[in-house]
Amino acid sequence: MPQREHSSAQATSYATESATQEGLDEIRRELGQDAVSTDVDDLEEHGFSEWSTSNTTARPRAVVRPSSTEEVSAIAKICTKYKIPMVPFGAGSSVEGNFSSPHSGICIDMSLMDKIVEFHPEDLDIVVQAGVNWTNLNEKIKVSGLFLPLDPGPTALIGGMIATNCSGTNAMRYGTMKDYVINLTVVLADGSVVKTRRRPRKTSAGYNLTALFTGSEGTLGIITEATLKLAIIPPKQSVAIATFPTVKDAAGAASDMIRGGVNLAALELMDDVQMKVVNSSGGAGGRKWEEQPTLFLKFSGTEQAIKDSIRAAKQVAKSSGCGSFTSATSEAEMESLWSARKQALWACLAVRPEGTEVWSTDVAVPISRMSDMIDECKGDAAKLGLFSSVLGHVGDGNFHQMIMYNPNKPEEKAAVKKVIDDMMHKALRMEGTVSGEHGIGIGKKECLLEELGPTTIGVMKSFKRSVDPHWLMNPGKVFDE
Amino acid sequence: MPQREHSSAQATSYATESATQEGLDEIRRELGQDAVSTDVDDLEEHGFSEWSTSNTTARPRAVVRPSSTEEVSAIAKICTKYKIPMVPFGAGSSVEGNFSSPHSGICIDMSLMDKIVEFHPEDLDIVVQAGVNWTNLNEKIKVSGLFLPLDPGPTALIGGMIATNCSGTNAMRYGTMKDYVINLTVVLADGSVVKTRRRPRKTSAGYNLTALFTGSEGTLGIITEATLKLAIIPPKQSVAIATFPTVKDAAGAASDMIRGGVNLAALELMDDVQMKVVNSSGGAGGRKWEEQPTLFLKFSGTEQAIKDSIRAAKQVAKSSGCGSFTSATSEAEMESLWSARKQALWACLAVRPEGTEVWSTDVAVPISRMSDMIDECKGDAAKLGLFSSVLGHVGDGNFHQMIMYNPNKPEEKAAVKKVIDDMMHKALRMEGTVSGEHGIGIGKKECLLEELGPTTIGVMKSFKRSVDPHWLMNPGKVFDE
Repeated sequence: MPQREHSSAQATSYATESATQEGLDEIRRELGQDAVSTDVDDLEEHGFSEWSTSNTTARPRAVVRPSSTEEVSAIAKICTKYKIPMVPFGAGSSVEGNFSSPHSGICIDMSLMDKIVEFHPEDLDIVVQAGVNWTNLNEKIKVSGLFLPLDPGPTALIGGMIATNCSGTNAMRYGTMKDYVINLTVVLADGSVVKTRRRPRKTSAGYNLTALFTGSEGTLGIITEATLKLAIIPPKQSVAIATFPTVKDAAGAASDMIRGGVNLAALELMDDVQMKVVNSSGGAGGRKWEEQPTLFLKFSGTEQAIKDSIRAAKQVAKSSGCGSFTSATSEAEMESLWSARKQALWACLAVRPEGTEVWSTDVAVPISRMSDMIDECKGDAAKLGLFSSVLGHVGDGNFHQMIMYNPNKPEEKAAVKKVIDDMMHKALRMEGTVSGEHGIGIGKKECLLEELGPTTIGVMKSFKRSVDPHWLMNPGKVFDE
Repeated sequence: MPQREHSSAQATSYATESATQEGLDEIRRELGQDAVSTDVDDLEEHGFSEWSTSNTTARPRAVVRPSSTEEVSAIAKICTKYKIPMVPFGAGSSVEGNFSSPHSGICIDMSLMDKIVEFHPEDLDIVVQAGVNWTNLNEKIKVSGLFLPLDPGPTALIGGMIATNCSGTNAMRYGTMKDYVINLTVVLADGSVVKTRRRPRKTSAGYNLTALFTGSEGTLGIITEATLKLAIIPPKQSVAIATFPTVKDAAGAASDMIRGGVNLAALELMDDVQMKVVNSSGGAGGRKWEEQPTLFLKFSGTEQAIKDSIRAAKQVAKSSGCGSFTSATSEAEMESLWSARKQALWACLAVRPEGTEVWSTDVAVPISRMSDMIDECKGDAAKLGLFSSVLGHVGDGNFHQMIMYNPNKPEEKAAVKKVIDDMMHKALRMEGTVSGEHGIGIGKKECLLEELGPTTIGVMKSFKRSVDPHWLMNPGKVFDE
């Protein structure tokens, strides 16, 4: 689903084709022939994503697969010597072109670094390589009663999750990726290896480099290893859903629950279109869903605490115009009620008409602005006469809008672009952000500049330049040189 | 209580006395005569603290009191022009010499910037100037049902709290200062004004400058304004205390409660010496306290949730060798039980013999190492034959050791220093940190270098240099040039 074709301003002069080949030969000598792939399909898979809203025409010259921090360091040294751009790659599941290769160079695929290095259940933490998949990780450590409470796309790898500061439906209760990183091992452009901290859960010692590298989208260095905090799997969970006459009512009820201190583990919104899609894609959880704006509520804790919270949530929902309010009475019903939320994205893709593409984006605004924001965005999108839906992590003031359009109709594409651009401006006018969880990549650089202004972006650039003077680390992302 | 006299390596050449005076004249012209003080007592109060473990002999040349971000910017421009060191100052309650003036220069006292700029109760956030005092803030907003859940020393100002990433007894449940900063307005050395973010609670847009400035101890810029997240005042709270035969047992029980997922709002430890001191300083809460290592537990939530948590905590405590376990049955008893913890520091100072000083420090280690760590540190200190006590935020693996000694006995001072140095090394061997919440200041620079190594410190320095090329912002702190 490529919507935007991006190029980037380039002041730095990168390696010529022959210098790049020389560099690759050197990498082969260091890491072995098998570590470097120039297979066309491999390059395509690492340079383009059907899932991404933003893509570029350029492709990496090679995909390199290191298997240790030392190998990543060796690659970086060689790339610096020849001025070859380096693009770190996890699962390739990001959606703003975060791993695309606008300046070509080499793609550093971290998937071989998939080891759990040390597990400290007694300290509630784990040391992992960057290529570990989070669903595998949670499966492996389940028996300890601990888990990593993020839930981005199921294929995501830890390194990419940290690089984009990912989150998902659990963020309301547990926070985002940044709240789970104790320390990072990062390889800088010149090959030096930095460990940001030791292993205490709390510290005030020195600059918080951990937080700076988290969310920097691979532009400051390549994350090779991380120590992560883990959370305790809650003793019990439950789910409730509440329907509302309008999206504005639903978002308003969400704000009221937050402000009222209702103890929620997740608070998600799906609009009437999303609910229709769930039904027409065959339903979910064996249910016929009401095709109305719906809040999905998750609760966790002891049995009594959950009961208290459901009661409190219902009371707020009812006083905000809620129609039906259904809470799960069994584990099976809980799974069934949550299934519509879980399958929302897949349901959309299942009903997508042949030849259309999806423009998907996310913003976040202060909680009190959310209902106006969603209402306005939905209204603007509706005027297009195209399929569009709203779905969101409303507990964090963060939501996604998805619009399907025909990329072969330039006027349609332009109209969609205008709606999305307006959405960004609206979010900024409401003191929000142009990305709550997908990051900037190549897709939102202009928006970021508008959000923060040249002085603040200037400080970010000066930090980057101080550790990456040749602008080799994932160039063309977040901001241009 | 000055224990360490510090000087700093200085590569940069700072303003001469006459250049400093010229700069001060320029500041007077910009801000008015009253904004600049050279009163000797004022200089002394801003350059030295009886409370601090670390002090320096140098004093600032002047104390400047700006009343707006624009005035701070004007000061910074003038200081950069004349190369005058700038030391931001909040309440002066930090204890590692964080606000001392080893290179003299001017002290920028933020206390006039004490305005609440905007309060958004519906968004659970507030915009404040850096000079706002946190206890006043919480008093003012109490009626909204919201509060800022940090609890450092009662005099602390928001700017200083952010600069040292403060915490306190609430950190276990609510996290540290970094978890409450949505955005910062910061004046850089050259006078440029940076706003790190807009006002969304969640974002993945651009580098996390907010987190980098938080905890940087004024060495990257001067915080003038902040948007802070607020938390909802819990509907109910309760307190329990549990005594143990040894400190090791108490710390072990604390670890077990954390690992067992007991829902606690705070988890504090005081050793037998601390409990004795509370009794001998007149008791607290009208009680005669058992003089044994004691855990102080705080619970919050609904009535039922609290009951469940107290039961779970008691069960763990009993299976870890707990002697008595007392939980509050009324609000008055709750206050009474918590009072010993609240008054611990004051009680110590009250019983301090004339002529002695207190060496107080904090470290944090992974939770499973805590009981060994505390046990060893207490043992080492006991060998000195001096008064020493342990008190800690054990829920975070973070604790304080306090030793009283006679500064006029060089061999006694040296022996205390050795015990403290050993404590730092021990924390590092256990993968901990040399500061859980007090920061580095001038007191722990060597320890920080040992903790993180020259490559990591090198990256911090390069970030500093990129926004403070003349090394003017709070020089001599965290690390040297």
